[in-house]
This record gives sequence, structure tokens and C-alpha cells, in this order.
Amino acid sequence: MRSTEDYVSAAKRNLFVPAANMEKLGTETLPRLENSGGIYVYDEDGRRLMDGPAGMWCTQIGYQRKEMAEAIAAQAMALSYNSPWYTTNSPAIELAEKIAELTPGDLNRVFFTTGGSTAVDTALRFVEFYNNVLGRPAKKKIIVRKDGYHGSTSLTAACSGREGNWKNFDIANEKIEFISSPNPRLHPGLSGSELVEQLAGEFESKIADLGPENVAVFLAEPLLASGGVIIPPSGYHARFKEICDRHDIIYISDEVVTAFGRCGEWFASEKVFGVVPDIITFAKGVTSGYIPLGGLAISEKLVARISGKEAKGSFFGNGYTYSGHPVSCAAALTNIEIFERDGLLAHVREIGPYFQSSMQALAQLPLVADVRGNGLVVCIECLADKNAAGVTDLDKKIGARIDEIAFEQGLIVRPLGNMCVLSPPLVITKSEIDDMVAILKEAIVRTAREFEAQG
Amino acid sequence: MRSTEDYVSAAKRNLFVPAANMEKLGTETLPRLENSGGIYVYDEDGRRLMDGPAGMWCTQIGYQRKEMAEAIAAQAMALSYNSPWYTTNSPAIELAEKIAELTPGDLNRVFFTTGGSTAVDTALRFVEFYNNVLGRPAKKKIIVRKDGYHGSTSLTAACSGREGNWKNFDIANEKIEFISSPNPRLHPGLSGSELVEQLAGEFESKIADLGPENVAVFLAEPLLASGGVIIPPSGYHARFKEICDRHDIIYISDEVVTAFGRCGEWFASEKVFGVVPDIITFAKGVTSGYIPLGGLAISEKLVARISGKEAKGSFFGNGYTYSGHPVSCAAALTNIEIFERDGLLAHVREIGPYFQSSMQALAQLPLVADVRGNGLVVCIECLADKNAAGVTDLDKKIGARIDEIAFEQGLIVRPLGNMCVLSPPLVITKSEIDDMVAILKEAIVRTAREFEAQG
Repeated sequence: MRSTEDYVSAAKRNLFVPAANMEKLGTETLPRLENSGGIYVYDEDGRRLMDGPAGMWCTQIGYQRKEMAEAIAAQAMALSYNSPWYTTNSPAIELAEKIAELTPGDLNRVFFTTGGSTAVDTALRFVEFYNNVLGRPAKKKIIVRKDGYHGSTSLTAACSGREGNWKNFDIANEKIEFISSPNPRLHPGLSGSELVEQLAGEFESKIADLGPENVAVFLAEPLLASGGVIIPPSGYHARFKEICDRHDIIYISDEVVTAFGRCGEWFASEKVFGVVPDIITFAKGVTSGYIPLGGLAISEKLVARISGKEAKGSFFGNGYTYSGHPVSCAAALTNIEIFERDGLLAHVREIGPYFQSSMQALAQLPLVADVRGNGLVVCIECLADKNAAGVTDLDKKIGARIDEIAFEQGLIVRPLGNMCVLSPPLVITKSEIDDMVAILKEAIVRTAREFEAQG
Repeated sequence: MRSTEDYVSAAKRNLFVPAANMEKLGTETLPRLENSGGIYVYDEDGRRLMDGPAGMWCTQIGYQRKEMAEAIAAQAMALSYNSPWYTTNSPAIELAEKIAELTPGDLNRVFFTTGGSTAVDTALRFVEFYNNVLGRPAKKKIIVRKDGYHGSTSLTAACSGREGNWKNFDIANEKIEFISSPNPRLHPGLSGSELVEQLAGEFESKIADLGPENVAVFLAEPLLASGGVIIPPSGYHARFKEICDRHDIIYISDEVVTAFGRCGEWFASEKVFGVVPDIITFAKGVTSGYIPLGGLAISEKLVARISGKEAKGSFFGNGYTYSGHPVSCAAALTNIEIFERDGLLAHVREIGPYFQSSMQALAQLPLVADVRGNGLVVCIECLADKNAAGVTDLDKKIGARIDEIAFEQGLIVRPLGNMCVLSPPLVITKSEIDDMVAILKEAIVRTAREFEAQG
């Protein structure tokens, strides 16, 4: 067993982590987790922490599921790898079949990748391929939204509408066009249906400006997760799908966060948000994060237009060494079995309203400007002046301070500037929700007092 | 247990695999592997097949390594996931430290991704970030080579110099420039050093044409693996590095295929090919394919230029949910332990010459125009007319036919058109090499007879 000091110095010396603060590179490191169980993780000092974000919106079934470890080990022993270019394996076939069954509509053709970024990247490459095979090489524009997030490959990062991700990268891409974030809070004077009409109008104008013959795809999360759990007004998704259909534009629903139970359904697009998209991308919850895996399900209607007699000799020359990895797919199958056996979707539908109403009670506290969510995901948006229109630099420090206090009290919050986003493992109980809310309440109240003292 | 027919129909209905032949989508499927052991895999009918390509150049330690399954299961139980944005884990730290130790020079800063494509994509995003932080926004051109291969994300696919991968995709990218494949076979009249000078001259001219102030990076595999195991002439790599240094151009060595023992060393760049690059990308062999993982090691010198006081407030806003995944990193650590304990690098250095000379003996056969390789990777290039300069459509059918016959005889070959590439698990023995060569010999002789009969 190595000492903590030893780990700290090795991490400082050799590890390069996502979103590293380059000024402090080599001089700081992150809390090291060592153990886990249920909805809790344990740090290097043995401190128990409630996992507020479920890792990174992914640990749906919770930690230390012995069946997962066993299924993974069994597959690693039977067949640890096969090349998807010239062979296949049983778990990949079974998982493709299962996902086809769980996705809405005719989204029955499943391609596997290594995570969410590669799922979206492949979906966009499929759309490119599709329009080229159809003989429409100009139909290539990708419409995305402010506050959206779709991954970290060069192309998917360019689709991110979170400007904080852009600095020091060359994000500008002639194929990508942004439209507004469907955030009701930014339009306090409009009703939901008025906002839908306004946003739909903007979308139609954008398509008209670009020329529908040049627009390939609308790429959208059902709720804008890391943009701050932004939930579009009711009717938005169906309205946008109808516009896409009218212009032969592919609608990709990026369900990397929302699929596998976060909103109480396998996939949220149809059952929660009322839209059957043309492609759904998934990752994270598909294995509850135990092993990397991502993928996409594509509509048969789309595939039919460019396969068989319509294929024109084409090959979909895209794929990853780990596409359909047998161990990843076996982990996903066991994960889905656990969901089914434990009735996890029903549990989320039952406990979700309790989670949301408990969080809504925090709206009474100082600093809390908005509480919004669905199922087991919520965002508590904080502003020093609750009624202010914009977010100040001071506001952006609130999340970090709440997180700091909550961490001391045994809860990991994932602050996004002034927003605290909670998306716990789906197995959370009412009493664990009560614990979470109690810690959050204290952290918010203490932070408010400190900010008042400063202000 | 489901029936074979059931798997076949589910695969046809729901699976979408890499490089799918769109004309046959839904009507054909691939052989299904079910079991494995050592250098062998077993298909759905229980047929034993020698794994010629080690999966996809990755199954270095062979199949059914119990320690791997155990280490993976133990980590899946202890801590199956942590978010690399705000926590870390012991296996990721230990692996970063180990890789820093194994890479040449000062390549000590390690970033983890989900595979080779995301490793190269991140390396290129790092270079972009680097030049932006340094205040050189124009220094962005990426120089790559014909016959090179670097992945399947939108950006890395655009770096592929294998034109077969381009069809129906929008590969053209204003930042990417191609130079010649360093293939000695294409220049029969030149000595190795003459060819180095010619290729170096072309590289210098390309840089001069673009303006060195606009050239960011040279991205190159030490040997061009899926381009057909093309081995540049001796001195090539060092010469190119010297040119890069002179123009402040970053040299990325893409070791996704060559790292972890393929050429008898942990990393081939320095010890086999005589170059210490600025960045090395790796994947595949790092876990012997048991679990998805990739990454890159960056020179401290590079990092120093944009960190600490030089950081200008920058954050490296790039990363994957599965960056530094604890289970993937634990698998890699155990894989490296097995390499060390079993002396696998020494084994490759010892048996590699036997493998190469056994394969060279096939050069006497009809159809075989060239046999080239290094360590445990070889390419047998076939041409209907052994002395022809170019490759015909007929030639491109040779590999598939050899593969078909070899498969019947119990050997998987990975044909690349007219080229048979073999890169077996590193644990292969002399007698297994003899078996492999015997099958190949029969397959080549039979194919030659068939082609003669046709021709």
C-alpha cells in the first residue's frame, strides 16, 4: 500500500486530467477515491461521501454490484476481445437487440462506440455518409443550441454551445450553426407555448437562411444537462421534429445523460419529451459507468434509404477497435438485467417527484434563484441577487463554495459555476434524499451568510 | 443458450458494424466468436482459430488470463467509476506514473482517453490549445502521410492517408496536408539514405510552402500499420524530428499499434526507430484489449511552455467521461505486470527474428511480391504479377481468398486488399509460428493455383 503523499506526488508529476488548470499543473491534485458502496464513495482518508452527480451522470445502479463484477470477469475470461471488422460476439448481438427493443419507433440499427463523444461523432459521420450516398453533398449543416453539450472530440466539441469550453480551442466550424437555448427562465414574459413558437420560428428562419437543401441535422439533448439541466417547454421537441421532417433534416436526440433511467424511462425522448427522433445516442448509464461503452440507434427508415439496392456500392467506413467490445456489452446486459429485476425505472418514477419536491423546498432559501429538474436530475441555480437577470462573476463562485461545504459534510455536488447539479445513483432512497437535502440546505445557508458578510 | 440461427437473425436485424457493406446490410453477418485461450479463439461452432491479427493488433498477452479477469473484477467491486473532472483514483495515478517511466525522454505527462482514435484526437486538440495559449493562432497545419491511419473520429479520420477510408465522407480539411508514404518498395532505385533525403526534402518543401509559422504538427506512426506495415528507411524518423525541431513543429508518434511489445519494446519510437517524439499516443496493447483504454504521453518541455506562469489563465477544456477509468487503468497495470513477470518483451526480441525469417521463406511462393515486418508484425504483399509496379483490382481479391482458405484451416488472417497482415499475440511460440506459416503457405499456394487457372 503506497502512502497518500506518494500518490499525491505521482499525480502532480504525471497525471493530466480533463479541464486541468494549467496555471496549477504539477502543483495540485484532486481528491482520490478508493472505495464505494451503494450511493456512496470513500476517499483516501476513508471519508464517506454521498455521490451527488452519480460519478458523471452515470452510476445508475450504484456501486459494488457484485453481479456486475462477476459478469465482467466471466466475459473477460470467455472472450476478452474480438475485432468488430471481421467477427462478432454474443453480448454485442444481444445488446444491439435489447437496445433496439428499448428505443422508440423503428430505431433498430445499433452501432457501438467507446463513450458519448464517439457516439455523437459517429452519428454525425453517419449523417455525412448518408447525405453523400444520397447524392446530396451540400446537405451538411449541423444545427445545435447554445448551452448544449455533445462531447470532446474535435467535431463534437465544436457542437458545444457552452462557451466556457471554447477558450483556446478552434471551435469555429463552417458546418455548425447555433440557435438559442430553450431556457424558459430567459423568457419570463412568455408562456410555454409562446416560447415554443418563438424558438420554432427561429429554427425555421435559420433553416430558410441556410437553405433546407444545405441542412443535414438537428443535434439536441432532450434536456440540456451540463448546460444546467435546461428543460425546454412542453411541445418543443415534437414541434422541432415536425420542422425537421418537413425539410428532410435528421433529428439526433443525444441521450447520453437522459437514457437508462435518469428521467424514469429507458430512453426519455418519446416517453418523457414526446419525440421519436431519427437517431438516439447513448453512453454512461448503459453500463452504469462500470466499463466504457457508448453507441447509437438509427431509424430503419434512414438506413433503408442507403442500403440494399440504394447502397451504390458504399461501405460505412467508420468504426473503433472497441466497437461492440464483448466485456463492455456483457456489462451493459447485466446492468439492464439489474434495472429490470430491481424495478429501477418504476423506482425513479415513484421517488422522482419526492426528489423534485424536496429540492423545490430549497427555493425558499437565500441565493436560490431557480430549482428545475426531471426524474432524478435537478439544478439549483444560485444568484447573489435572486432576481437578477444575468450571472455575475461573484455568482459563479457560489457553486464552488456550496460544494466545498457540502463535501465537508459528506456530499459531492458538481458545481457548474453558479449552478449545483445533482443526479444521484437511481437506487437512492427517501431517507438518503432527506440527508442530501439537509446537507445542501446547510451548505446554501452558510454560503449565503458568507456572501452577505462579504457583500 | 440461444441458437445460432437466433444470433444470426438478431445480428442481421440490429447490429451495425464497422465498415459495413451497405448493399448487404441486414442480409449477412460475421463469424461469431464465443470462447478463447492463449493465441486461439473459438467460433460459434467450437472451431479453433489461431488469432493471426491478435484481435485488432491488441491481444498481446493472449486470451483467458485469469489474473486480468480477477484484477478487473476486484477494481469493479472496489470503485467502478469516478469522475476525472473532480476526483482521481489510484490505478489512474499508478498507470500514469508507469507510462511516464516506460516512455522515452521527458514524455511524463499522461492523459487518458477511451481508445486510439480519442488519443490522437486529444493529442491534436492539445496541439491546437498549445499554439493558441502560446499566441500563435495561425500555427495549425497538421502534416500526415499517405498510407497512414490515425483513427475514426471526424478529425482523425481526416488524417487517414488510406484513400479507401475516404469514400462517401467529407475528408478534406484545410488544416491537413499529406506527404508521401515512406515506402521503400515504391522507390526501388533508391538506397535507404537516398530515400530518406528525398522524403526529407519533400517535407522541408511542404513546410516552406505552408510557412513554418503555420505548421503545428507532424503526426506519424513509426511503422504504417494498417497502411500495410510500411517500414520507413533507417534514419527517416530522426531526420524528420530534426526538421520538426528546427521549425518548432510538434512530432506526434502514433504508437497505438507499435507500443506494448509489438516490436519488442514498450514503445518503439526511440528504441526501434531512433526518435524521441514530443507526444506518443497509445491504446490497444496497453490493456491487451481486455477493456477499452487509450491515452497520450506529452513532453514536459511542451507542457512547461504553457503551464505555471506561462498558462495565461488557461484550462485544458478537453476530456472524456471515461478518462482515467479505474477499471481500465487497473486492467492496464495488471497487463504490464504480466509483461514484466513473463518477460514478454524479451520473448518478442528473441522470437521476432524467427517469425520474420519464417515469413520471409514465403517470399519464394508465387503471388508473394514482398514480405516485410518488425518484431511480431509482418505484411505479405501479394500481386498476381509479382514484379508489377501497381496493384490491380484482381490483386485486391488475393488477400480475401488466402484468408478464406486459411480460415478453413484454422487461422484468421486480416486481409487488407492484396496484403495479408499478421500480428499474433506476443505469447506465440516457435511451434505455433510453424503452424501459422504452414497454413499460410498452403493458402497462398492454393490461391495461386486458382488465380493461375482463372488467368
